Amino acid sequence: MSELATEVAPKIERSEAELLATPFVRELIKQIRAQDTHGVWDGKSDMALLGPYILSAEQRRALPMMGDPDPDTLWRLELFYNAVGLSIERQTGVIASPMLKMHHEGFGRMVLIAGRLVVVNKHLRDVHRYGYPSLAKLADTGGKLVADAVAMIEQFPEAARYG
Amino acid sequence: MSELATEVAPKIERSEAELLATPFVRELIKQIRAQDTHGVWDGKSDMALLGPYILSAEQRRALPMMGDPDPDTLWRLELFYNAVGLSIERQTGVIASPMLKMHHEGFGRMVLIAGRLVVVNKHLRDVHRYGYPSLAKLADTGGKLVADAVAMIEQFPEAARYG
Repeated sequence: MSELATEVAPKIERSEAELLATPFVRELIKQIRAQDTHGVWDGKSDMALLGPYILSAEQRRALPMMGDPDPDTLWRLELFYNAVGLSIERQTGVIASPMLKMHHEGFGRMVLIAGRLVVVNKHLRDVHRYGYPSLAKLADTGGKLVADAVAMIEQFPEAARYG
Repeated sequence: MSELATEVAPKIERSEAELLATPFVRELIKQIRAQDTHGVWDGKSDMALLGPYILSAEQRRALPMMGDPDPDTLWRLELFYNAVGLSIERQTGVIASPMLKMHHEGFGRMVLIAGRLVVVNKHLRDVHRYGYPSLAKLADTGGKLVADAVAMIEQFPEAARYG
């Protein structure tokens, strides 16, 4: 094995069940199920509930970019960041509240605020086509947002616990 | 003079001209005039431009609280906080960007973010009736928001200059 190859992290194939069991994905599923006040999704699998989050490149391209993003798309986006916020709270005890500002043409900004600290700062674009190419990518994106936010809180604990 | 009386800060009556010359009010007037791309307000006095910000208790009560706040009201609110942000930048060199989230029924939240620091954090209510009882109150409210934000930046300089 060359020296170069050893530097590359081995790409571990994770099963669907493993990905569904990661803390962030579990939190997201819990958020989605919490919206189902009439129990109509009781028979739906976790993977079926996450289905609309997973878009192939072709599916993305097929979505029109006209007008404002679809309310269902915004709803999915907000649930995703709610799950990020709750995962942060679970790890740090600090509440992180989301604030979304949509501009025109599918551009926007999402922040999660803990105390006086912006723990997640995400500029959004192509919100019309919001989604992830795979469950692995969804899990990794959410997990990384949570990990980065926890690191921010560790770096600025006073601002995060202000007031 | 009793001891008690000496503890109370003397209430200085400020003239309209003095209030219009305060840095925050000047910034707000500049913001308003910057919207006037066709010069139709050139003949209007500063006080006339600020007029819609000043509401007596009676005028406030007369404004209906139904539905969403009037777009003109939101526009005035956003210009006010833009002026707060630009005053902060003038004093500290740090850019503070506003983000407004309106909820239902005239409730909302306005934040100004510098780097990763929330330098202004304002929960809004009765936005339908947004305004100030006097020019003095407008000047003091804006001035205090700026002063508090500058103090936050001094307390958390690293977070304010992050990234």
